[in-house]
Amino acid sequence: MKNTVYMEEMDAFTYRDKLAQEAVMFIPVGALEQHGSHMAMCVDAALTKAMAGATAEALVADTEGAVEGVVCAPINFGYRSQQRSGGGFHLSGTTSLAGSTLISLARDICYNLIEDGARKIVFMNGHYENYQFIFEGAQLALEKARTDGISDVKIQLLSYWDFVDDATIDALYPDGFTGWDLEHAGVMETSLMLLFHPDLVDMDRIDAGVYCDLPAVLPNYDVLPVVPGYTPPSGCLSHPGESTREKGVILRDVAVRNMVTAIENEFYRPGDFHEN
Amino acid sequence: MKNTVYMEEMDAFTYRDKLAQEAVMFIPVGALEQHGSHMAMCVDAALTKAMAGATAEALVADTEGAVEGVVCAPINFGYRSQQRSGGGFHLSGTTSLAGSTLISLARDICYNLIEDGARKIVFMNGHYENYQFIFEGAQLALEKARTDGISDVKIQLLSYWDFVDDATIDALYPDGFTGWDLEHAGVMETSLMLLFHPDLVDMDRIDAGVYCDLPAVLPNYDVLPVVPGYTPPSGCLSHPGESTREKGVILRDVAVRNMVTAIENEFYRPGDFHEN
Amino acid sequence: MKNTVYMEEMDAFTYRDKLAQEAVMFIPVGALEQHGSHMAMCVDAALTKAMAGATAEALVADTEGAVEGVVCAPINFGYRSQQRSGGGFHLSGTTSLAGSTLISLARDICYNLIEDGARKIVFMNGHYENYQFIFEGAQLALEKARTDGISDVKIQLLSYWDFVDDATIDALYPDGFTGWDLEHAGVMETSLMLLFHPDLVDMDRIDAGVYCDLPAVLPNYDVLPVVPGYTPPSGCLSHPGESTREKGVILRDVAVRNMVTAIENEFYRPGDFHEN
Amino acid sequence: MKNTVYMEEMDAFTYRDKLAQEAVMFIPVGALEQHGSHMAMCVDAALTKAMAGATAEALVADTEGAVEGVVCAPINFGYRSQQRSGGGFHLSGTTSLAGSTLISLARDICYNLIEDGARKIVFMNGHYENYQFIFEGAQLALEKARTDGISDVKIQLLSYWDFVDDATIDALYPDGFTGWDLEHAGVMETSLMLLFHPDLVDMDRIDAGVYCDLPAVLPNYDVLPVVPGYTPPSGCLSHPGESTREKGVILRDVAVRNMVTAIENEFYRPGDFHEN
Amino acid sequence: MKNTVYMEEMDAFTYRDKLAQEAVMFIPVGALEQHGSHMAMCVDAALTKAMAGATAEALVADTEGAVEGVVCAPINFGYRSQQRSGGGFHLSGTTSLAGSTLISLARDICYNLIEDGARKIVFMNGHYENYQFIFEGAQLALEKARTDGISDVKIQLLSYWDFVDDATIDALYPDGFTGWDLEHAGVMETSLMLLFHPDLVDMDRIDAGVYCDLPAVLPNYDVLPVVPGYTPPSGCLSHPGESTREKGVILRDVAVRNMVTAIENEFYRPGDFHEN
Amino acid sequence: MKNTVYMEEMDAFTYRDKLAQEAVMFIPVGALEQHGSHMAMCVDAALTKAMAGATAEALVADTEGAVEGVVCAPINFGYRSQQRSGGGFHLSGTTSLAGSTLISLARDICYNLIEDGARKIVFMNGHYENYQFIFEGAQLALEKARTDGISDVKIQLLSYWDFVDDATIDALYPDGFTGWDLEHAGVMETSLMLLFHPDLVDMDRIDAGVYCDLPAVLPNYDVLPVVPGYTPPSGCLSHPGESTREKGVILRDVAVRNMVTAIENEFYRPGDFHEN
Repeated sequence: MKNTVYMEEMDAFTYRDKLAQEAVMFIPVGALEQHGSHMAMCVDAALTKAMAGATAEALVADTEGAVEGVVCAPINFGYRSQQRSGGGFHLSGTTSLAGSTLISLARDICYNLIEDGARKIVFMNGHYENYQFIFEGAQLALEKARTDGISDVKIQLLSYWDFVDDATIDALYPDGFTGWDLEHAGVMETSLMLLFHPDLVDMDRIDAGVYCDLPAVLPNYDVLPVVPGYTPPSGCLSHPGESTREKGVILRDVAVRNMVTAIENEFYRPGDFHEN
Repeated sequence: MKNTVYMEEMDAFTYRDKLAQEAVMFIPVGALEQHGSHMAMCVDAALTKAMAGATAEALVADTEGAVEGVVCAPINFGYRSQQRSGGGFHLSGTTSLAGSTLISLARDICYNLIEDGARKIVFMNGHYENYQFIFEGAQLALEKARTDGISDVKIQLLSYWDFVDDATIDALYPDGFTGWDLEHAGVMETSLMLLFHPDLVDMDRIDAGVYCDLPAVLPNYDVLPVVPGYTPPSGCLSHPGESTREKGVILRDVAVRNMVTAIENEFYRPGDFHEN
Repeated sequence: MKNTVYMEEMDAFTYRDKLAQEAVMFIPVGALEQHGSHMAMCVDAALTKAMAGATAEALVADTEGAVEGVVCAPINFGYRSQQRSGGGFHLSGTTSLAGSTLISLARDICYNLIEDGARKIVFMNGHYENYQFIFEGAQLALEKARTDGISDVKIQLLSYWDFVDDATIDALYPDGFTGWDLEHAGVMETSLMLLFHPDLVDMDRIDAGVYCDLPAVLPNYDVLPVVPGYTPPSGCLSHPGESTREKGVILRDVAVRNMVTAIENEFYRPGDFHEN
Repeated sequence: MKNTVYMEEMDAFTYRDKLAQEAVMFIPVGALEQHGSHMAMCVDAALTKAMAGATAEALVADTEGAVEGVVCAPINFGYRSQQRSGGGFHLSGTTSLAGSTLISLARDICYNLIEDGARKIVFMNGHYENYQFIFEGAQLALEKARTDGISDVKIQLLSYWDFVDDATIDALYPDGFTGWDLEHAGVMETSLMLLFHPDLVDMDRIDAGVYCDLPAVLPNYDVLPVVPGYTPPSGCLSHPGESTREKGVILRDVAVRNMVTAIENEFYRPGDFHEN
Repeated sequence: MKNTVYMEEMDAFTYRDKLAQEAVMFIPVGALEQHGSHMAMCVDAALTKAMAGATAEALVADTEGAVEGVVCAPINFGYRSQQRSGGGFHLSGTTSLAGSTLISLARDICYNLIEDGARKIVFMNGHYENYQFIFEGAQLALEKARTDGISDVKIQLLSYWDFVDDATIDALYPDGFTGWDLEHAGVMETSLMLLFHPDLVDMDRIDAGVYCDLPAVLPNYDVLPVVPGYTPPSGCLSHPGESTREKGVILRDVAVRNMVTAIENEFYRPGDFHEN
Repeated sequence: MKNTVYMEEMDAFTYRDKLAQEAVMFIPVGALEQHGSHMAMCVDAALTKAMAGATAEALVADTEGAVEGVVCAPINFGYRSQQRSGGGFHLSGTTSLAGSTLISLARDICYNLIEDGARKIVFMNGHYENYQFIFEGAQLALEKARTDGISDVKIQLLSYWDFVDDATIDALYPDGFTGWDLEHAGVMETSLMLLFHPDLVDMDRIDAGVYCDLPAVLPNYDVLPVVPGYTPPSGCLSHPGESTREKGVILRDVAVRNMVTAIENEFYRPGDFHEN
């Protein structure tokens, strides 16, 4: 079997070896959601899985193998898409978990990894709307672990885009950056898909007639039931036209590098791996 | 973008077109679970997704395109593995959802597809322990749809191995068949993995020292907490040694053919697609 | 008050005495469900209670009083009847608990017995569809007990018909046995009712005009909403015509004997009670 | 099969006939709870079932058969016993459902009867602590029925002792009545058990050494965790010594008569059955 | 900042000081509910908060500062109003929590105070229908605390009106007292509001045309759906006309004094504060 | 009784009159949470209630009475405080609801107002962490209302600080604005408290020794269990020293004006109230 950081592609004996070495466990959380006509619906799950994989590999490399990283199977369904960050859950193809379902799912998976022996866990979010529900699930898993007498677990919760620094944003969005919430199916996600899953992107399907009214101008509040007219016809919130594989490389590299630093800072003591 | 039956790899506009043609929706339900040292842990999810994909494609082919088939992203975590069918949930790498979590997950996903317009849904199970919880989730989705005034949904619930007929079993298990429950990581699953995901199988890791006491001899009851000694050291319940890609082809072909027939029988009138 | 193994009929002081002697606790789980026109609707609850009582008594006898057995009040409602094992939950008189309700009920009762001091618990199932929900409830009770620092509980989960051996099946079903799932209101249940509750059986109400299409021929999958036409008009899945009290005696005796052996094997060391 | 008002002892076809005649459905709700050393633990469930049966029969008689009555299988486990009405849930033998479990159980059973066609439902309570949870479950069942378009259901919720009138109380408790809450295992329950289940009462087990400090003097508040010292050593809250079968007859007769009147008043128009 | 017993009006540092002195924590539980046309809808929440505040202050005074008292923010929504004690939840303005919501709310708040260090907690109820759900929530909080190894918490649960003694009742209700359940918007609540919140009472809005049929005559059972005709047109269950601020003073004083005694008895040893 | 927009202070008859005029209903959602030593713990609940009241009054004024506004009792407990926006839920005095509790609470209250007849509802959030759980609760209330056939409800969800415009921010934070998440107990909240509840602020308790390390520098991720060292010793996330009542007036005025505009835009047609 191939060498891999992905738990799904790993046999259980190899997994146990890695856990015995105190591997950092990553839990990617995505969604199955419309991303316009130019990208497949798995974007949030696929990118988060890929970014977690790249981060796990970079962590191993950066520590010269002192630290193992394992990426759990992704949570591939997410919380209801909201109009201000995902176009809205009324759109066909956008699949929505109830809040309580996502909380339970995050709790169960996290708790299972703890039971397996994981003590360093990184929840990596890739669907804006998920965050609070993952946070709650992680807390419930910790509470449950504590009833088993396990109190040495640490969980880091992050969204990968928060690790793209301002300099990169300035470079990649020369016309101004409208915020990560509007990046739904925009330049960041499309560029990363061009890097990780080029067969699931088709730039030719960016139809000018549909990809209009971008970036979306949305109110500073939500409305329920969803007001369909607030969402641009493509379902994207910003225009993906300037996306390139090269931007994908830059975005991946900077985010991965910063996430590795954050993970090392949080889970290890300074200098554990590197001379300064 | 490539032509595909997989919703994850499909853009939302294409998906809506297929739903407008009354596509049959498949929801694969698997697990992330140890499968010995010779296979990756995604077996139940990967095989169910692959079998659902093959069935969707065969359905399209058999109806000469009159029927579309779409395969939803799989539920890639399953209910607690039981010793009599999966070796037990105490084994590291085996990831377990609480019953209520799996019920909610099945309910939410099924309900979302109904909201998208799906009216013909096939829940395809690939992890023995899941079945009753999927059934409950499907029923709750139907009840919820009914409160929206939607009453023309039909859901078929099946486990793919139930469509392997007796003749095939006799041919593939010349020394006798011990039942699908003991097929955990045995000849069926391994042969299908050799067909669909050969890179996730390594027959050389079938270590005779560990792959002993097979087929497992288990009591006709369950015990909680799990009695580890009841599970063979490999975590497999029957020996995968006789697995081949060819058997995988046979198993896929017969199961897919029978599932297509069952789907056509259940969702369409006789003769809808074929002269007799 | 009479001497009894039934907790319902026992006063609390006597119960505490038995628990102080480390009694094995039985929790019967049945259903309130249609069983044709020839039997009362309590069959699953009444038979499981009776079988648990007979097993408790046989356990006491077999150990010459070294082991006490107590039968908790039965869970007298069960999970939704499925067409392939109970005729379907659409049938009037068939009363269905939601999955989450049965899980909670099994959890609460089991946990209470543990709190009372029970450490050896046998969940005896008598309604095919219940099993997975009882399993989940038992596991949740164990997890709750563990948070109280109680870790010496053992729970055995079984369905009584699984303890009827092949020789008995061959003898009682000379024309072939169609499986326990189809035994709903068939020879086994009717014979046992003729033994335990003859006043709740009326063989004269086996009306040939209604008791047709038996044994039922059901697809190898489920459909929701239920397809009423799949269920025979009587609601039975196999014909009870050959039932006799004598068969009931045989079924009880063999199942009870085998259950006693399984209980002794699981909860005690070999030779604890008997010279070999 | 015998003629009966008990659904458990009725076959499904007979049940459907009775429902077709708009039978009043009774759902008895009891408990499995310690009742001192002189009575079995089923008292609350057994008495409520018996009182519901007697009321159903009296309703049929009083309307000269114009109205049918059917008694569902009892809910035989109840909410946590409280010290002020049942001695407390810390006592071994007292089995407690969580509030949410009892709510779900009452909801599911009530909803199922409505689905079966029942439109007149009487929840009869026999365990003081249950009432609010039954009320909630009944309301949830109604809400669920309403989503099915069923809006002609009426549910009456009562505790049978509330129908013992003041004159009877004065006659049966010449030394003063301390309230129904303290009647746990006292004269009312014991007298009714002597009537309905004399084999489950043993007046000789009223041990003066244990049956002291009665009637219990309890604070006008609850304390958690339970303060064991507040409960008298017998677990009874008032002394059962003056109980007789004759008092049981009086109590049954007056309560049944008044319940029949209340049911007729609530579900039918005046004069529907009787000339005035 | 002002000196206060109310946690809402206290800064966190002061609160921590009080908890370090083992303050008794009060949790008032009220409702937002119609109270006729002569009183605001906050009555149950406002009175319970005020009574808890008065009790906390009296406790401090009575112990000469040896004991601190802190009143948590009130639970200002309550369980569904029932016709026999609040006029019914069908009335507009009456806001109802589901049973499970109130249980969770009581659990979470109580558990948080325990986590903060509170070990002496008084749940003070002011809405008749709430009691059982608070009891359940308190028990769940205790169970959760126990899993953290915290076992020295004591919770007292009470309704403030239960501490008005018979002599006071006789004096204030010279024409006879109809029970606390019928006191909804009657003399007790109105008199206390005249004392604590005179600006939220308007005795001139007691309109004779609407305030009729009082005290309400209600059946000794509940009906669902609510039968609107059972509730008097004002929504009050007894007539508030004889209410005065002076009666409010008497009611407050007697109830507070008796609650202080009950709290001291329950949480402290005799003589801890006073010479006898 | 006084004239008021607050439902708590309104009698039910007046409330019904306002609803009959299609009043806009506001539901303030706050928290009970530490806010340093210089402010009371009710800040989030008290400010949101006050801002909702001011907005309701301004809406009435702006429409010259054509529109009524009513402010429901606030949800005065909130979701677990997070370190990046509230200092963390480990801090004593900070009271945390589980995610599922807040969802249920928001659902029940919102649904009740809809049942009362409200069709225009504004959820006003004042505790950063609450938002997603309120959103979920609002959606569940809508789904429940839809099962009752009610489909003309519109819910607007907002956080009041999002309506402070950039010009005001620039003017009030001349040294730069660090974001609303860090405004916990900072200039905005303190200034508004100085306006609305000056008796609950004490600027003299801003102790330089404790109010250090401000504004807090927090990582761009969360950690569980909370890392106490990340939170400044005061529990505030930015320094409140420059707060004034005048800034409170400015903040209130601009936010209220913008919220009124947003409400009118969302619920009414242009020009409904004003000539242009």
